This record gives sequence, C-alpha cells and structure tokens, in this order.
Amino acid sequence: MAQAVYGYHLYLEQAKPHIKKARLYKSGMTSELRRAEEAIDSALSGRRTAVISGGDAGVYGMTAAVFEVLAARGIDLGRADGQLRVKVIPGVPAVVGGAALLGSPLSNDFCAISLSDRLTPWDLIEKRLRLAAQGDFVIGLYNPKSKLRDWQLARSAEILLEYLPPETPVGLTDRIGRAGQAVSLITLSGLAQAPVDMQTMIIIGNQSTFVYRGLLVTPRGYVNKYGLKDRESPKKEMENAD
Amino acid sequence: MAQAVYGYHLYLEQAKPHIKKARLYKSGMTSELRRAEEAIDSALSGRRTAVISGGDAGVYGMTAAVFEVLAARGIDLGRADGQLRVKVIPGVPAVVGGAALLGSPLSNDFCAISLSDRLTPWDLIEKRLRLAAQGDFVIGLYNPKSKLRDWQLARSAEILLEYLPPETPVGLTDRIGRAGQAVSLITLSGLAQAPVDMQTMIIIGNQSTFVYRGLLVTPRGYVNKYGLKDRESPKKEMENAD
Repeated sequence: MAQAVYGYHLYLEQAKPHIKKARLYKSGMTSELRRAEEAIDSALSGRRTAVISGGDAGVYGMTAAVFEVLAARGIDLGRADGQLRVKVIPGVPAVVGGAALLGSPLSNDFCAISLSDRLTPWDLIEKRLRLAAQGDFVIGLYNPKSKLRDWQLARSAEILLEYLPPETPVGLTDRIGRAGQAVSLITLSGLAQAPVDMQTMIIIGNQSTFVYRGLLVTPRGYVNKYGLKDRESPKKEMENAD
Repeated sequence: MAQAVYGYHLYLEQAKPHIKKARLYKSGMTSELRRAEEAIDSALSGRRTAVISGGDAGVYGMTAAVFEVLAARGIDLGRADGQLRVKVIPGVPAVVGGAALLGSPLSNDFCAISLSDRLTPWDLIEKRLRLAAQGDFVIGLYNPKSKLRDWQLARSAEILLEYLPPETPVGLTDRIGRAGQAVSLITLSGLAQAPVDMQTMIIIGNQSTFVYRGLLVTPRGYVNKYGLKDRESPKKEMENAD
C-alpha cells in the first residue's frame, strides 16, 4: 500500500476514491519532471511511493520522467540501502481504450504518434506521420491539440492527405472511461477542423479499415482468406472444456 | 455474466479459475475465424457469450475475426430481435505488458508490427519494418516465430540492421504474466539468433533508448530539456490534497 501518491491533479481526483491512507501530491500538466523528482525523493526517504498516470504509465506517461531522473541521478535499483525498488504496473493505453469504444480499429499493425512538439522536434513528428501513412499503418494520434499548440493537428491532417484518401475513416474518442466520454467517426478530410483537445484520442484507419454500423473495423483478413463456414451444414460438435 | 466463453485453449485454461458457470469452448491457435463464427451463433441463439483473447482483444486479438464475421454476415448491432449487442473490453496489450517488465521502452512514438505472414503479405511487413526503422520508432514485434514460420525473425533483423546500429538495445519478454515469465536484454546484432517463439514479445529501442541497471529506457527528453532541480535548494512545499 502506497504511503504517498504523486500525479496530475485530474488523475489524482479520479484515483482518490481508491486510495485509502496515502498522502496525495498533485501537480499540473507540464510538471512531469518535478513530480518524478519529488516522488523519487519521497521513495528515497523510505516512504512507499506511487506515481500515477492516465492510461498506461509507459505510453506517454510518467515512466519516462521517473526513469530519466533515476538514470540522471545514478540511483541504484535493488533492495539495499540507498537503492530503490521500482515496479511498473501496466495499464490500458488511451489508444487501446479508444479502440475498444470504436470497435476493432487496431487489429492490424499500428503506430502511436504524439503531436506534442514540446519535447520532440516537429520535423521528426512530420517525418513519422509520412512514414506511418506510407506503411499503411493504423495511426493513433496522442495529444492532438492544447491551448498553446493549435496548428499541429491541421498540419498533420494535411500531411496525411498527401498519402491517404480523404475518405479514410477516423475515430475520435474523448475522455475515455471518464465523465463526458464521447465517440465520433469522421473522415480524414474533416480531421483538420475536428473539435479535439488534449483529452481526445484520434485513430486513423489504414486502407482496409471500414465503417460497420457506426464502428471502425480494420480486418486482419480472416474472412477474405478462409471464407465463412457453410451456413447450411449441420452444426459441428464443439469441444466443451467442463 | 457470460453463459458461454470461447477462446484459445491456453487462454481459457488461464481464465478458468475466474469463470463461474459458463460453458467453455476451447479451440486451437489457427481457428480464430471458426471460433468467432461459433461465438456469434451462440450469441444469436440468445446466450450471453464472451470471446477471450490474450493481452488486449483489439491488438492482434479476437475482435478482428468477430467484427469481420459480423460485417460479412450483415448482422445488425443493437437491442432488437436478430440484433447483437457487442462490447469490447480493453486489456493490456502484450507490447505494454512487456514494456512494463522492461522499464520504460515505449515512452516515445512506437509501432506494433506482427511478423506473421499468414494473413499479411511478407512484402508489406518488410516495408513496414523499413519505414518504422527510418522513423526512429520504438518497434514492438508480435508473433516473431512459430513452428511453420522460422525465417521471418532473422530476415527482419537483417532489414532493421540496414537502418539501425547493431548495438541498438532490444528487450525480449516471454510468457508475460504467466508461469515461465522471463525478461532479457540483447542488442539488434543478436536478434536473428535470439531464442524466441510465439509467446515472445520483442521491443526494439529507438536511437535514444538506453540500458539502465538492466532496464530499457526511452527518454522523452525531460531531463535534457529542463535539467534536474537544484539539489541544494530548500525542499519546496508540496501541495497536499488531503
């Protein structure tokens, strides 16, 4: 049981009902590094310390800041004095939570790309968008827009439209698993003007992705390769495990 | 509560202790399509039916087969007679479960690529490997090898070595969360000969990924951009939420 829990205030509020006795240390959206440093100081002082993230901590979450600080400070990992035991608990990344709401968009090779150029040069993000589109990857876009970053999504849509048809289906999921959860389908031609913010997860289909009854489906190709079974044949006996 | 549960026998065995009363229908590794069809028949017959996958059902899991069959058979989704209500419950994909064991390898843009050419032409897989390497994506490789597919991993390693340095760190995770779980670190130069099978998840670092105390860390760049806080300054008061 953690004695101290560090996190972005929105996520700490969500987690609060599940936290019994720990002290909570909340911080703002761009303070990942200080949060990680303070959490590590807390752990070095002997307190069992947790750092929480939205989605999965390892996918654009807090594990990067924590491990960067551990490495920069040369902190040993282990059970001896002055060492820390660090455990990463995996979760459901936003791209996967969004996919579940959309149907089956991620069921072939995919990329996750963050449109935040706070720490990654924009040129590299553009390059990755181009390569992902050329490879016919399904593309999950994280962090599409914030108050200070208002042109990156439109520029990304423009780049993707150089490679992908305008009718490529796109799923938008908002506030996954939280109050205000919303799902909508658009096409790539409407992406530049789509109403999104930092809480929106965008999934862009590949060239096989289709819309079925309001859901996104990226086929693996089972039906195409093997065909449906003969519906008239007597039902085959199924193995029953119990 | 499901009345019928369909799945690959290995996963059904794992899930069995958590299943109370349902009938279990287990099937083999390459029978995804028939499994999906039978599960849909079961649901259409009025039984509450679950289909289980390893990892997340939407990432190389059973959602593709299920939605392909629903679409091919034109089955309506909804609550009326002859319609089905389908809900996808997200999980932890193997690439994320593996990442948690490895430290923080996925903390920048990444791709997931399956090396199975059963349903995807090998040329397209090669193309994706080349593009992912050129984009400096972290790369998660699913389904690296099976009894019938024994050369794809070595060929993939050869391709990646055209773009990435041989000392690129690579994490191997086996049987994540199951008996026999194992983690090891190698470099790209050793990937072709690495001991892997269908249960192995491979994560290949990007050009920034480094090894720290036996773990893989892909930095976001926090420390590089903002620097560590002055360790001599008085500890700043932290906000306490409770």
